[in-house]
Amino acid sequence: MIKVGIIGATGYAGAELVRLLMGHKDAEVVWYGSRSYVDQRYADVYHNTFEIVDAKCMDDNMDKMAEQVDVIFTATPQGLCASLINEEILSKAKVIDLSADFRIKDIKKYEKWYGIEHKAPQFEEEAVYGLCEINREQIKGARLIANPGCYPTCSTLSIYPLVKEGMIDPNTLIIDAKSGTTGAGRGAKVANLFCEVNESIKAYGVASHRHTPEIEDQLSYAAGKEVTINFTPHLVPMERGILVTAYASLAKEVTYEEVKAAYDKYYADEKFVRVLDKDVCPETRWVKGSNYVDVNFKLDPRTNRVIIMGAMDNMVKGAAGQAIQNMNLMFGLEETEGLLTLPMIF
Amino acid sequence: MIKVGIIGATGYAGAELVRLLMGHKDAEVVWYGSRSYVDQRYADVYHNTFEIVDAKCMDDNMDKMAEQVDVIFTATPQGLCASLINEEILSKAKVIDLSADFRIKDIKKYEKWYGIEHKAPQFEEEAVYGLCEINREQIKGARLIANPGCYPTCSTLSIYPLVKEGMIDPNTLIIDAKSGTTGAGRGAKVANLFCEVNESIKAYGVASHRHTPEIEDQLSYAAGKEVTINFTPHLVPMERGILVTAYASLAKEVTYEEVKAAYDKYYADEKFVRVLDKDVCPETRWVKGSNYVDVNFKLDPRTNRVIIMGAMDNMVKGAAGQAIQNMNLMFGLEETEGLLTLPMIF
Amino acid sequence: MIKVGIIGATGYAGAELVRLLMGHKDAEVVWYGSRSYVDQRYADVYHNTFEIVDAKCMDDNMDKMAEQVDVIFTATPQGLCASLINEEILSKAKVIDLSADFRIKDIKKYEKWYGIEHKAPQFEEEAVYGLCEINREQIKGARLIANPGCYPTCSTLSIYPLVKEGMIDPNTLIIDAKSGTTGAGRGAKVANLFCEVNESIKAYGVASHRHTPEIEDQLSYAAGKEVTINFTPHLVPMERGILVTAYASLAKEVTYEEVKAAYDKYYADEKFVRVLDKDVCPETRWVKGSNYVDVNFKLDPRTNRVIIMGAMDNMVKGAAGQAIQNMNLMFGLEETEGLLTLPMIF
Amino acid sequence: MIKVGIIGATGYAGAELVRLLMGHKDAEVVWYGSRSYVDQRYADVYHNTFEIVDAKCMDDNMDKMAEQVDVIFTATPQGLCASLINEEILSKAKVIDLSADFRIKDIKKYEKWYGIEHKAPQFEEEAVYGLCEINREQIKGARLIANPGCYPTCSTLSIYPLVKEGMIDPNTLIIDAKSGTTGAGRGAKVANLFCEVNESIKAYGVASHRHTPEIEDQLSYAAGKEVTINFTPHLVPMERGILVTAYASLAKEVTYEEVKAAYDKYYADEKFVRVLDKDVCPETRWVKGSNYVDVNFKLDPRTNRVIIMGAMDNMVKGAAGQAIQNMNLMFGLEETEGLLTLPMIF
Repeated sequence: MIKVGIIGATGYAGAELVRLLMGHKDAEVVWYGSRSYVDQRYADVYHNTFEIVDAKCMDDNMDKMAEQVDVIFTATPQGLCASLINEEILSKAKVIDLSADFRIKDIKKYEKWYGIEHKAPQFEEEAVYGLCEINREQIKGARLIANPGCYPTCSTLSIYPLVKEGMIDPNTLIIDAKSGTTGAGRGAKVANLFCEVNESIKAYGVASHRHTPEIEDQLSYAAGKEVTINFTPHLVPMERGILVTAYASLAKEVTYEEVKAAYDKYYADEKFVRVLDKDVCPETRWVKGSNYVDVNFKLDPRTNRVIIMGAMDNMVKGAAGQAIQNMNLMFGLEETEGLLTLPMIF
Repeated sequence: MIKVGIIGATGYAGAELVRLLMGHKDAEVVWYGSRSYVDQRYADVYHNTFEIVDAKCMDDNMDKMAEQVDVIFTATPQGLCASLINEEILSKAKVIDLSADFRIKDIKKYEKWYGIEHKAPQFEEEAVYGLCEINREQIKGARLIANPGCYPTCSTLSIYPLVKEGMIDPNTLIIDAKSGTTGAGRGAKVANLFCEVNESIKAYGVASHRHTPEIEDQLSYAAGKEVTINFTPHLVPMERGILVTAYASLAKEVTYEEVKAAYDKYYADEKFVRVLDKDVCPETRWVKGSNYVDVNFKLDPRTNRVIIMGAMDNMVKGAAGQAIQNMNLMFGLEETEGLLTLPMIF
Repeated sequence: MIKVGIIGATGYAGAELVRLLMGHKDAEVVWYGSRSYVDQRYADVYHNTFEIVDAKCMDDNMDKMAEQVDVIFTATPQGLCASLINEEILSKAKVIDLSADFRIKDIKKYEKWYGIEHKAPQFEEEAVYGLCEINREQIKGARLIANPGCYPTCSTLSIYPLVKEGMIDPNTLIIDAKSGTTGAGRGAKVANLFCEVNESIKAYGVASHRHTPEIEDQLSYAAGKEVTINFTPHLVPMERGILVTAYASLAKEVTYEEVKAAYDKYYADEKFVRVLDKDVCPETRWVKGSNYVDVNFKLDPRTNRVIIMGAMDNMVKGAAGQAIQNMNLMFGLEETEGLLTLPMIF
Repeated sequence: MIKVGIIGATGYAGAELVRLLMGHKDAEVVWYGSRSYVDQRYADVYHNTFEIVDAKCMDDNMDKMAEQVDVIFTATPQGLCASLINEEILSKAKVIDLSADFRIKDIKKYEKWYGIEHKAPQFEEEAVYGLCEINREQIKGARLIANPGCYPTCSTLSIYPLVKEGMIDPNTLIIDAKSGTTGAGRGAKVANLFCEVNESIKAYGVASHRHTPEIEDQLSYAAGKEVTINFTPHLVPMERGILVTAYASLAKEVTYEEVKAAYDKYYADEKFVRVLDKDVCPETRWVKGSNYVDVNFKLDPRTNRVIIMGAMDNMVKGAAGQAIQNMNLMFGLEETEGLLTLPMIF
């Protein structure tokens, strides 16, 4: 049984890790870390675990945690993991960081977009970007995983085959993304109150959202050259789900069948990426609560562009689910263990 | 492997059966019955099953189905199961009826409240009311289960210990219930459109809802005398969940501890009924997607009444989950098999 | 033109006052009081007023405000109005207090239920409870109005005729109320975040909610004797609206027509109370954004009870709208001025 | 008093016309046309009008209606207005068509995108496209108005200054739009049920939505040359509101101030178009229930593109409100009459 420690267990991503790990046959949470709720019963914070989780919240002491667990998930804001991690911890436990600290290889770029100093640049090189479908082999041997951001996961997986196969001009890419409100976390801010979010939609972080360089990096690797894109996230009055609608100019004349073949080339054997049937648009509800990403595309001969769509649960494949998928790979388990529940459509 | 047939697999309760059975290790759906979608792929109706369920929808032929399956779930409007069932079917397959056809022992009462003629009164006596926590032993040997209604399940389980222990005057009971919109089913009616339901709340079926006699019957059995109550359901702008708030005059002076002990007497060993800590109010989100029922109570010395609260997922414990719990009991499986996923709080 | 000052203009009730007063032909807001946003443009807090309201937020100085305005609305938490008000203020400006400070005549009762010391008991006697349909004449001559609470307004107006006419036993009254989330205000609390409120329902303040004594007082006046009731509020995942479902035992045999006549006796000439047609259930969406209260009732001969229903917009008739209705009466204006917009159904 | 007849008064746009006209001092509805509800009280369909609207629904007889009213609003699906209209009607009453029948000057283009035969091509030339801010003068003298579509109104107004001033290359325009569910109308379809729409987002009509040619036509007029764009609408789980996020490559180097000046040039004097302050993103809730369109833009030097945003209430400025704005212009009234209520933010 793999022993799991969670730093930030009372945040939304932490709660989702707890939910998913409850259904994992080879792992169990033994340390519920939470700065705000130390010594309180976890079930008093999340009543869904009443009579199921008996543990109390513990502090965020990563050194001590490393002695007692096999793997540490850090489900905390950027900066914290980098400020706590060290060689000794990594020598004892594997670390899967759900924050952005190790996602961007270029430290200067990270510091510029995130506006903070990176406290552990020495591990940036070692950290593996945990997008399982792309980096599966490196993940298997990793000690430190940079679990991808929600928008980058959905964006990259939706677009990857087209960039990789040179079917689009990557610098024409425009990604218009829409996210549910769990993505904003559990912080008590007026902007995230029910009456502020409900019955409304807005863009935010326009031309400046921190997931932009992460997406650009991944697409640049695929393209084999530097890619600059537009990325605009929107807040949608729903709890879970990300929908990506992306636009790009075609680099050559292609048919539906050729593009479909490109998607199938990369995803036919991927359990969690589903290339939908022709003309079926991804909807976030078809993947809710699950680790699936539904992708599809539509060619528009009028404008010589392709419209690419991807739907995903931001809390699962976009956070906790992918983190567990990474854990499965790192520990030599079945990659899908604990992650095969059917999406909950309502 | 238990072979399962579902009549009404494309309705909401049917879809929930499919979702939950996907996580059941000893059962598999082999017949997706659906009048409206015969010969269409099930995954084309419910895209969440894309690449997971390969089957096409079949008709609702119960006779033929009985030859190919071990258990039949009828997730259809009242009247259908009674009109199809016969001795030969029951000799071949167990039947779990999610409709109201076999819930009310008094045929006249059924016909009066439902306004239809009962087509199979000969099975009314045999049918076991599948409220597992109350009728566990009879369920184990049953061929035909009347799966309880959503409101009656939540109401009865919330109130049962108080009636059974004679702590309240059952004829003072007033049940004010609130349900999510999945309870209204998938029929295309103006009243259930997003813009008609969203941002509003209303009572319906006031003093006339069909679940009233079902609740009264169950409470009458517990009280050992005929009970008449008020029951008022409300439609809430959410998808899943039922909350019951019930009021009754105390029959004698009781302390918090005594009432708590009454609840514990019946539910301490029940996995799916959770008696919450003092002063914690049940919320539907703490049970969402799960088979749990959260109950609690509050004594009001000012009025000598007790306020009883129960929260439940109407699609799981109130329909598909309890049906599977019944199936588990009937087939000698672990009662909780397939039903232990943690509630999904968002 | 009546000059209006608002203390708490950046809270939800304050924002609703601003919205409604914008459509009032004889009043204009000249002081937008707000402790948190002093010197910031009001339109920067509430962008709906962009290019419409040019003013900056000012402090909550009630003494100074009284010199510049004709009427002061205090839309702040309990305690503040009582701590600021004095004879000099009242000699200069009329005060309409949207908090609970002057609603309960018995200071001890107020202090017990609210848990704070009352700072201005000397004005309790003078203050008029501003339920316009009941206390119209006293309101006209008042200097200080206790604007009724949202739940008490909807509860009292729904039940009043039955109590006044002696048709029910008032001590059997059970009020089960449901409210949208604007009622919780604009405070940044985890419990009011979108992901905590959405897709869930819960009771709160069970047997202890502060609106209980206020409702009891009003019903006691109507009954001519002391009344004790049960009142249970619930939080509903919607923004606006209160639905009251109340239950009481009939005190004598009555027909539908007799009860209807009782309602008509009190409300036939009331513009803002609509007694619906037989068997039509009030829904909050039919009154959204408006000052109307829709009421109806259903006799249940099975239990000898009557079920009473009332729907209202908690922010309008339950707060800002009724406050303006009071202002209209106090200043000799048409009572309905600024309050006749049609409910916004979606 | 202008006498108004509405064809389709029981649809969502019809109901919104009724709501807004109730607040108009110079117009009154005298004919509530509705095929489905003939002879039923309008207030029985829309209870918000209970005790306010006394009229019964009448049929859709446009000839007869023209004899009794000054202006006819057709709030019906495409095809109906064109099939009913004739010279005699237009000689008696002005017609404002909320459907698409007269929006596209090229009949062949209309028939291709809408898949129906145009029944009244002889009026296409005469019809004036009722985008008030652009075509104000022609509207004043018109007999027949093609009231713009919801997406085209929001898209065109948001983008217009940039195209008109040659600041962007119009053929690089990509419009990603998001709409509330009122846009889908009141038809009883499974796809629009609460449980299908809520908690989900999806694109629809990808590369094929009928509003595409309408937007292209308007932008082409502004550009002085033919423009081809991408337009993708999305369904958002909310009732009202459209948000447009558009992307285009800059045609020349421009500063924030220069672009802002371009917007101000066209909109500084426009009451209903609000160019927001720098870096403030439009949100649909800031315009809910009102006739305002909030627009803004952001330059992205990294990609040499501009991101354009516009928020609007699809039922008001996108349908009924703009129709009334057109009526005001046609009858020589104040353009803003009946349309100045403050947006309802919750």
